[in-house]
Amino acid sequence: MLGGHFLHGGDYNPEQWLDCPEILEEDIRLMKKARVNCVTLGVFSWAVLEPEEGRYDFDWLEEIIDRLGKEKIQVILATPSGAMPHWLTQKYPETMQVGADGKRNLPGKRHNFCYTSPVMREKIRLLDTALSERFGRKENVILWHISNEFGGNFGDSTCHCEHCQKAFREWLKERYGTLGELNRAWWGRFWSHVYTDWEQIHSPAPHGEWTMTGLELDWRRFSTEQISDFCAHEIHAVRTHSDLPVTTNFMDFFKGLDYNRLQKELDIVSWDNYPFWHERKDEVPVAVRAAANHSMMRSMKKKPFLLMESAPSQINWRKNNPLKRPGMHMLSSMQAVAHGSDSVQYFQWRKGRGAYEKFHGAVLDHKNGSDTRTFREVTEVGARLEHLGELLDGTVNRPKAAVIFDWENWWAAEHITGPRMDLDYVDRVLAHCRAFWEAGIEADIVSMDADLSGYRLVAAPMNYMYKSGYAERVREFVSAGGVYVTTYFSGVVDEHDLCFTGHHPLEDVLGVIQEEIDAPSEEFENSFCYGDGTWPAGRMCEIVRAKDGTDVLSVYEKDFYAGCPVVTKNRYGNGAAYYVAAETDRGFLNAFYRNVFEQAGIKNALGVSLPYGVTVTERCAEDGRRVIFIMNFKNEPVLISGIGRYEDAESKEVYEGEIELEAFQCILLR
Amino acid sequence: MLGGHFLHGGDYNPEQWLDCPEILEEDIRLMKKARVNCVTLGVFSWAVLEPEEGRYDFDWLEEIIDRLGKEKIQVILATPSGAMPHWLTQKYPETMQVGADGKRNLPGKRHNFCYTSPVMREKIRLLDTALSERFGRKENVILWHISNEFGGNFGDSTCHCEHCQKAFREWLKERYGTLGELNRAWWGRFWSHVYTDWEQIHSPAPHGEWTMTGLELDWRRFSTEQISDFCAHEIHAVRTHSDLPVTTNFMDFFKGLDYNRLQKELDIVSWDNYPFWHERKDEVPVAVRAAANHSMMRSMKKKPFLLMESAPSQINWRKNNPLKRPGMHMLSSMQAVAHGSDSVQYFQWRKGRGAYEKFHGAVLDHKNGSDTRTFREVTEVGARLEHLGELLDGTVNRPKAAVIFDWENWWAAEHITGPRMDLDYVDRVLAHCRAFWEAGIEADIVSMDADLSGYRLVAAPMNYMYKSGYAERVREFVSAGGVYVTTYFSGVVDEHDLCFTGHHPLEDVLGVIQEEIDAPSEEFENSFCYGDGTWPAGRMCEIVRAKDGTDVLSVYEKDFYAGCPVVTKNRYGNGAAYYVAAETDRGFLNAFYRNVFEQAGIKNALGVSLPYGVTVTERCAEDGRRVIFIMNFKNEPVLISGIGRYEDAESKEVYEGEIELEAFQCILLR
Amino acid sequence: MLGGHFLHGGDYNPEQWLDCPEILEEDIRLMKKARVNCVTLGVFSWAVLEPEEGRYDFDWLEEIIDRLGKEKIQVILATPSGAMPHWLTQKYPETMQVGADGKRNLPGKRHNFCYTSPVMREKIRLLDTALSERFGRKENVILWHISNEFGGNFGDSTCHCEHCQKAFREWLKERYGTLGELNRAWWGRFWSHVYTDWEQIHSPAPHGEWTMTGLELDWRRFSTEQISDFCAHEIHAVRTHSDLPVTTNFMDFFKGLDYNRLQKELDIVSWDNYPFWHERKDEVPVAVRAAANHSMMRSMKKKPFLLMESAPSQINWRKNNPLKRPGMHMLSSMQAVAHGSDSVQYFQWRKGRGAYEKFHGAVLDHKNGSDTRTFREVTEVGARLEHLGELLDGTVNRPKAAVIFDWENWWAAEHITGPRMDLDYVDRVLAHCRAFWEAGIEADIVSMDADLSGYRLVAAPMNYMYKSGYAERVREFVSAGGVYVTTYFSGVVDEHDLCFTGHHPLEDVLGVIQEEIDAPSEEFENSFCYGDGTWPAGRMCEIVRAKDGTDVLSVYEKDFYAGCPVVTKNRYGNGAAYYVAAETDRGFLNAFYRNVFEQAGIKNALGVSLPYGVTVTERCAEDGRRVIFIMNFKNEPVLISGIGRYEDAESKEVYEGEIELEAFQCILLR
Repeated sequence: MLGGHFLHGGDYNPEQWLDCPEILEEDIRLMKKARVNCVTLGVFSWAVLEPEEGRYDFDWLEEIIDRLGKEKIQVILATPSGAMPHWLTQKYPETMQVGADGKRNLPGKRHNFCYTSPVMREKIRLLDTALSERFGRKENVILWHISNEFGGNFGDSTCHCEHCQKAFREWLKERYGTLGELNRAWWGRFWSHVYTDWEQIHSPAPHGEWTMTGLELDWRRFSTEQISDFCAHEIHAVRTHSDLPVTTNFMDFFKGLDYNRLQKELDIVSWDNYPFWHERKDEVPVAVRAAANHSMMRSMKKKPFLLMESAPSQINWRKNNPLKRPGMHMLSSMQAVAHGSDSVQYFQWRKGRGAYEKFHGAVLDHKNGSDTRTFREVTEVGARLEHLGELLDGTVNRPKAAVIFDWENWWAAEHITGPRMDLDYVDRVLAHCRAFWEAGIEADIVSMDADLSGYRLVAAPMNYMYKSGYAERVREFVSAGGVYVTTYFSGVVDEHDLCFTGHHPLEDVLGVIQEEIDAPSEEFENSFCYGDGTWPAGRMCEIVRAKDGTDVLSVYEKDFYAGCPVVTKNRYGNGAAYYVAAETDRGFLNAFYRNVFEQAGIKNALGVSLPYGVTVTERCAEDGRRVIFIMNFKNEPVLISGIGRYEDAESKEVYEGEIELEAFQCILLR
Repeated sequence: MLGGHFLHGGDYNPEQWLDCPEILEEDIRLMKKARVNCVTLGVFSWAVLEPEEGRYDFDWLEEIIDRLGKEKIQVILATPSGAMPHWLTQKYPETMQVGADGKRNLPGKRHNFCYTSPVMREKIRLLDTALSERFGRKENVILWHISNEFGGNFGDSTCHCEHCQKAFREWLKERYGTLGELNRAWWGRFWSHVYTDWEQIHSPAPHGEWTMTGLELDWRRFSTEQISDFCAHEIHAVRTHSDLPVTTNFMDFFKGLDYNRLQKELDIVSWDNYPFWHERKDEVPVAVRAAANHSMMRSMKKKPFLLMESAPSQINWRKNNPLKRPGMHMLSSMQAVAHGSDSVQYFQWRKGRGAYEKFHGAVLDHKNGSDTRTFREVTEVGARLEHLGELLDGTVNRPKAAVIFDWENWWAAEHITGPRMDLDYVDRVLAHCRAFWEAGIEADIVSMDADLSGYRLVAAPMNYMYKSGYAERVREFVSAGGVYVTTYFSGVVDEHDLCFTGHHPLEDVLGVIQEEIDAPSEEFENSFCYGDGTWPAGRMCEIVRAKDGTDVLSVYEKDFYAGCPVVTKNRYGNGAAYYVAAETDRGFLNAFYRNVFEQAGIKNALGVSLPYGVTVTERCAEDGRRVIFIMNFKNEPVLISGIGRYEDAESKEVYEGEIELEAFQCILLR
Repeated sequence: MLGGHFLHGGDYNPEQWLDCPEILEEDIRLMKKARVNCVTLGVFSWAVLEPEEGRYDFDWLEEIIDRLGKEKIQVILATPSGAMPHWLTQKYPETMQVGADGKRNLPGKRHNFCYTSPVMREKIRLLDTALSERFGRKENVILWHISNEFGGNFGDSTCHCEHCQKAFREWLKERYGTLGELNRAWWGRFWSHVYTDWEQIHSPAPHGEWTMTGLELDWRRFSTEQISDFCAHEIHAVRTHSDLPVTTNFMDFFKGLDYNRLQKELDIVSWDNYPFWHERKDEVPVAVRAAANHSMMRSMKKKPFLLMESAPSQINWRKNNPLKRPGMHMLSSMQAVAHGSDSVQYFQWRKGRGAYEKFHGAVLDHKNGSDTRTFREVTEVGARLEHLGELLDGTVNRPKAAVIFDWENWWAAEHITGPRMDLDYVDRVLAHCRAFWEAGIEADIVSMDADLSGYRLVAAPMNYMYKSGYAERVREFVSAGGVYVTTYFSGVVDEHDLCFTGHHPLEDVLGVIQEEIDAPSEEFENSFCYGDGTWPAGRMCEIVRAKDGTDVLSVYEKDFYAGCPVVTKNRYGNGAAYYVAAETDRGFLNAFYRNVFEQAGIKNALGVSLPYGVTVTERCAEDGRRVIFIMNFKNEPVLISGIGRYEDAESKEVYEGEIELEAFQCILLR
C-alpha cells in the first residue's frame, strides 16, 4: 500500500481552468471536503507543458503540485503522450498513425501516435526527461503514470506506417530466422502464399491479406511488443532523475494489447473500471465481469493493484448511461478493494465545460458545487477508506484456484473461420468465472504461461491454442494432484495456429478422443442430464470418445450423437481432469463446479452457500491477518445463514449464525 | 400569390425528349387537360444548355418557353448548377467535392460540386448571366429557381477540399479574431487540443478530429454560410438582367443546412414534400411531420410559401413505395395550401425512360397516356385550385403559438456524448407538434433567433443549447405575460457548446434547479400521474428541485428519485413557465397541452374538440377574410360535433352543429 | 461420361505436405480405400510450380501424377491463376485488382488479379504453356481446370484499374459506335449526364457514378466479357500442346459473372456446391436451391456436368457450420447425379494445418486417420458410384419445361430504385422452381437467349427486362402451342434498362394491360382466392386490366384495387399465357402450377403425387434407357403410394403400388 493508506482521488485537469483562479482554489477546498488524498496530473497536458517545440512551461504545474502538497494531497504524475499537441502533428505528420486501410490519420482525438516513429519517441523522451528532472523527487509525487490507456485509439491498436512495416519485418526475422521457418509457421503454401523476400510481408489489411492466421497472430504479438517497447522507452526517460515506481492504466478485457506482456515493464498494475451498472435489474453479470478484471489485474503480479479510474456516477459513451443508484458507488468502490485494489480513483475531479467528455461523470458537476448526491457519496467512500488503511495494509487475496485467460488464445480462437464465426472467448471465460463468483470462490485469472503449481484447481475454458510447454505444465499439475477443467475446442492448434495432427496433446490426461465438432443451427437443440437437472447443450457440440478408464458423467440426449459423452472425468496421477464437450449454461456450470470444488477441496471464506447476488472474498496478510468481504449486489436486503462467529471489522458488531446485508451493502468481517 | 392564382404544375424536363417532337406536343396538350398552369424548366439542363465549354444552346429552351407561353403556362426557370456536365468535371476536377475521408469524388450523380471552387463559381456565373439576359424578362417566366436542393448530395452536405479548408480558416479568423478566443470557445486544452497556428485547423473527419464539438458546430455553420454565399452568387448572376423574385427548394428536416440562414437570401421560400403516406394505417404521424414542415417554411418569412415538388403518386427511393390511395393526393395537396402554400407542384411532369429516377412518380407514366388514375387525380387538384385562387388570395396563417426548432441546437444536441447517444431532436419536436396538431392549434416553427413578442405560447422541447440573447428574450416574453414550455436537457450549453456553470440561465423563470439526468435502461421504467392518467417517464429522466413558489404538478413514482418533480409550473412576471423533466409520450402531451392552451387562452378555429385524425387550420387576410380548413387523415368518415354555423367555401353548403367528412377529405369553411 | 465411369475424388494439395513423405504415401493408400479415382491438382500451386520468375519446378508434380497413375487415379490439372505468388505482386503491383473505391489491393488472399493486366496475362500464358507441354498428354491427366471460381474475389468481381477503364471504353466504342448512341442508351440527358468524350466514362463507384443504370449494366456485361476473354486466353495456352477438354468451376447463383456467357468458352460445365444443409429441420428450400443450380449447370450445354467441389461434411465460412447428418452426404451426392452430374468431387482431400481453410471439411481430418464417420461415408459414396457407371453412361435429364433465369435481368431488376428496394430475383425464381420440385417435375433453367421451341412450358418470374428478340420468341412459342407463365414487373425495360413506352411488348400474348404497381407497407395486407384457397398477395401488387377475351382467374380482395385481376389466362394461337400480377407464396404456386402442368400436359416420372420432402428426376439415354431417381429429403421415412411396377436399379428389388424410402434415402428405379 503506497504510504500505508488507500489512495482516494483521481484525474485532475487544472490546465483547463488556469484562467479561473477561483475554480482552482475551490478545487483544493472541496478535495479536502471529499477526503481526496491523491490526484493524477498531466495526463493530457502536453500542449500546455510544451506550448511550442522545445519550450517547456512547467511553472503552473509545480505551483499546483505545491499547493496540493501543502494540503497533504499526493500526486501521480502522468507523461502526456496520450494526446499530441497540434504543433507536433503539424511539423511531423509521420508521428501519426496509419490505419489498416493505408491512410494516415489527420491530427486530433487522442492516442493518435505511431509507437515506432523515431520523432515521436525523441520528442516524448525529451519532455519526459525534463518532467523527471523537475518533479521526479518532489515530496508529494509518488508514482509515474506512463501515457494513458495504451492502444486505446479509436481504430485498432496498431499503426500500419512504413516505419512499423519495417519494424515488423525485423521482428519477424528475429523470431523466425529464415523465410523457410516463417513459411512453415504460417502454412505458406496455402493459396500460394510463399514469401520469398522479407519485403513481401505487409501487415493484415482489409484490402490485402487477412486469410493467413499466422500473420494475423504475429502482427498482434508484434504490436504488443512495440507498445511495450514504447512504454519502456518512456519509463527509461522518467527514471533519468527519479526512482519512483511506474504504472500505466489498463482497460476492461482489451483485445488489442496483451497486458500479461506489457505489465512486465511496470512496478504496479492499475486499471480503469467502467462497469455498465444498471444495464439490467440483475447486476450479477456486470459484477462478475468487474470482479474478473480486478482479479486479473491482481494476478499479474500477485500483488495489490490500483483502481486508477472509475466513474463517480454516470459515464458518457454508452448508448444510454444510467445514474449510479444510491449505494452502488460505495459497493463498486469496495468491490475493487475486496479483490485487491489499494485505491479508489476517479475520472475525473471536475467536469470540463466543452468537447468530448464534458458529460463524463466527475466528482464535481458543472452546477451546484458540492451540493450534489455524487459529491456526498464520494465523500462517504473517502471517509470509509481512511478507516480501512491500517486494517488492510499488507493484505492481498491468495486464491487456490485459477482460470486461464490468454490473449493469444483470444486472438486465435476468434479469428478462425471454423465451426462458428461468432465465438466469444471472453463470454465463455466469464461463464466459468460466474460459477466461481456465485460460489464465493475467488480465482486468479492467469495466462497459459503461469506457474500452476500453487493451485488446487485450474479451469481453462475454450482453450483452443496450446502455447509451447503448456500441455507439459498441465500434465505435471494434474499428475501432482491438481484438478483441471477444460472444454470443447481445446488443444486444437499450436502457438502458430497450426492444427495438431494425430492426437490431442493432452489425450492421456483428459482421457477423451475428439472426433467431430458440430455447430448446430437453432432448430437443432440438444441436451444432457447432469446432477439433478437436464441442461441445454449449446452452439458448439463436440463429439468425443471416452478412452478406457475415463468416467462418462453425462451424455447427449438427442440427434445422431445421442449417447456420446458430454461430461467426463479422468483420474491421472494424483489428480483429475474434467472435460466438458459442449457449450453449457449457467445452471449446469453451477452444478458442475459444486462437484469440482468438492473434488479440489475448495470452500469459500464463510464456508456456506450464498444467496443469489452475494459473493465473498478474502484479503490476507503474511502475518495471518484475514479480512472477509461480503458484498450484496441485489438492490434489496439478503440473509446469509449458517455462518460461524465473526466480528464486523468496522462497526465491531458480532454476527453468529446469520447476517443480513442491506441493498448494495458491503461489509468486512474478521 | 404569384399572379393572383395558385400555381399547379411541376418539374418539366423536355430536354430528355428533344428527339421526340410528338412527345413534346402531347405534353402541352395534356398539361392543358390536367389544368397545369406552371412548369419548372432547366433544373438539370446544363449539359444541354452548354454542350461544350462556353457554347450556349438556348434555342430549344426558348422555343419550349414560347410554346408554353402561348398556352398561358407560366415558367419557373432554374439555374442548372444542381448537376454538372461531364466536360466541366473532366477539364476542372477541382470543381468536384472532396469527402470527409479526403477523397475527391469522381464525376457523376448530382450535387457533386464544391461550393467554394472559383472555377465552378465562374462557370455558373457566366451561364446564369446568359440565362438572365435571354430569359429574365420573358413574359411567362415568373420566378428564378436557384440550383436544386442545396446540400442534398449523397454524402454529407459539405466539401473538404483545400479551397474549403482555407475558406473555413478565414471564416474562423473572422469569427474569433485570435486563436486564443478560438481555443477558449472550443475548450482547446481538453486532450491537448490547443491550436497554435490557423493552418492546424482541419474540418472534422472520421480519420481525424471528431471529438471537438466546437469544431464540429463551426464546420456546420461555415458550410451553411458557404452554401448561402454560393446561392447569393448565383442570385447576383441571374439578377444581372432580371428583377424576378428568387427561390430555391428546401427539403424535409434537412440537417446539413440551416434553412433559417439560407432563406435570408431568398424572396420566396419553397420546398419539396415527400411524406411516407401509407407507411402505416395510422396516417397521423406522417401528417404531423408534413404539417410541421409546411409551417416551418411559412414561418421563415411569415408569408405564403410554394410547394415546389411533390409526388403525384408513388416515389422510388424508400424501401417500399406504396401507391397513393384514392383521396390522398387531393388531401396532401390541400394540406400544403391549408398551412400556407400558394402552389401545388410536382416532380415531375413525365417519367423519363432511363436512369435513377425512371420510376419516380410523375403526372404521365410510361404507358397509357392520360388514361391513368394518377392523371385523373392530378386534374382534379388542378380544377379545385383554379376555383380557390380568388378565395385565398392575400391570406396566410397567423398562429398565436410557436414551437422552437433550431438547427444549431439540432447539431449540438445530437452530436454529444452524454446521457444517451441516440437523442432525436426532430422526433421530440414533432412529439410536441403533434399535441398542437391533434388539438387543431397551429404553431409557427421558428428558430431561437425569432422575435417571440407576438405569441401567447412558446414551446421549446429539448432546447439543449441557448444561443446568445435567447435566455433574455424568453425572460422578457414570460415577464410580459407569455406562456413558456420547456423540458429536460434544456439550457445546458451556450452557443459554443460550452456548459453553463453554476446556474441554469433561466433558473429564475423556470423555477427549478437541475441536478442530475438519468438515462435509465429498459428494465428501469418510471412513471408519473398527471390529470386523469399515469404516464410513462421515458428514456431521459431529469432530477430537478423545485424552487420556493414553483408549483409541482407531478412527481416520479419509482426508483430513487420517486417524489422528485416531473412537471412544474412557475409564475414569472405576468406569465408562466412549465418544465417537463422527463421524456414523455403522446398521451401525457395531449393532456398537458390541453391545460397549457387554456392557460395561454388559445383555441382552435372551430372551438371544439376534434376526433382523432382530424385537424383544422385557418388562413386570414389583412381585410379580415378567414377561411378554415378541416382535414380528415383517416381513411374513413368522421363526425365533428358541437360546431357553430359555417358555410362551405366551395359548395356553399351550410353546416351547423355537426359536420361529417369523408375518408381523406378536406373542406374549406367560412 | 469421362472414361465411362463416375469421377469420385476432389481437390488435392500435396504441395502443402512435400516435406512429409509419409503423409503423401498415406494419401494414396487412403484414396484407394475411399474409392477415389480422380483428383484435381495444382489449383493454388503457382508459388511452388514457379518459385521465382521464369524458373519452373514441375518435378514434384510429375512424380505425384505418376504415382497416382500407377494406382489408376486420374488427374484434373488446374492452371494456378487463382492465387498469385508473392514475387509476382511484388515485382508487378499492376497485376493486382483496384477496387471501386480506386484503391489498389495489397498482395494476399486469392483471386486478386486484374483480368486485363498484360503482365498477368503474359506470366500465366508462359506458365500454362509449360504445363501444357509437360502434362498435356500425360495418360492419367483427363481435363484442364482453368483457374478457380472466376470472379470470386472478396470484393466485387471487377477491377477498376486504368487498364480496365481503357478496355471498358474500347468495349463501349465497339458496342455503341458513337457517343450519341451511348447517350441515348444510357438516357444521358437525365441529370446532365451527357458524355461528350469517351475519356469521361468511368466505371461505377461509390464516390462517383451509380445512378446511371445503363452504365452499371454495361460495366457488368464488360466484366463478364473480360473474364471470359481471360479464360479464353488461358485455354489457348493450355491447348498449345494438348487437346484435352477444358472446364472451370462455377458457383451457386453468382451475381458477378454471367455464366451463360462464360460457359461458351468451355467444353464441360462444372460447379462447386455448398448447400446449407441442416440450417433448419425442413431441408426442402435448401434442396430446391441445390437442384436449381444443378439443373442450370446441365441446361447450359444440355449435357451432363461435373460436380467439381462439395463438402464431405462441415464447411467453415457460414455463421454456424453444422456437421452433415448421417445419410445427407450420400443423398446430396446422389442429388447431383440425379440432376445430371457425372461426378462427385470434394474440396478437399486432406485438411491443411494452417491458414484460412484449415477447418473446411475434407475427406481426411487432422486427427484419427481414416477412422472417422466422414471417411466412411465418403467411401460408401465411392463404392456406390462404381456400380452406377454402366447404368447411367450416356444418360442425361431432358425436361419438357423451362424456367427463365437471366443474369442481365438479375442485374437490372435488383439495381433499380423503384416500387421496392429489396427485390430478390433469385428468391422469386426459386419460389417457382420449388413448385416444380415439389411436383417432381424437372425444368431446365435457361437464359432469355435460349431456344424455347423444345418445351411445352416456360415460366418467367419477375422478368423485368426483355432482351432484344425475346418478346418475339415468346410470341412464337405460345403461338405454336406452348404454355407461358409470367408475373408482375415483367416486360418493363429493354436491354438498355430503358422503359418501354405505350404498350407492354407482349400485351397481345398476355392479354393484360399493366397500369400501376403497388408496394404496400406491412399493415396493408391483401389476398385473393384461387382454387380451394385464399392466398396472400405479397409485397408487390400490380394493378392490371384484363383485355377482352382474357380469363380472370382470381381478383384482389382488399384495398382500393379489390376486384382487379391477380391471375389471368389468355389463349393465344395454339397456346396459352398466364399472368400472376402479385407476389405470391408457396401455397398458391403449388395450386397454380398443378393446373398449369395439366394445361401443358406434363407429369412427373412416377405419375403420382409426392409426399412432402420427396422429389423425382429422370436420366434418359438416346437408346431409350431411363433411370428414375427418388429422393427423400426428410430425416424420417416416407411412403409413396399409387405407383406402377418398378425395379430397383441397384438392389433389383421390385416395387409395385407403394414404395417406402428411409430418412435421407435416394433410390434408383427402372
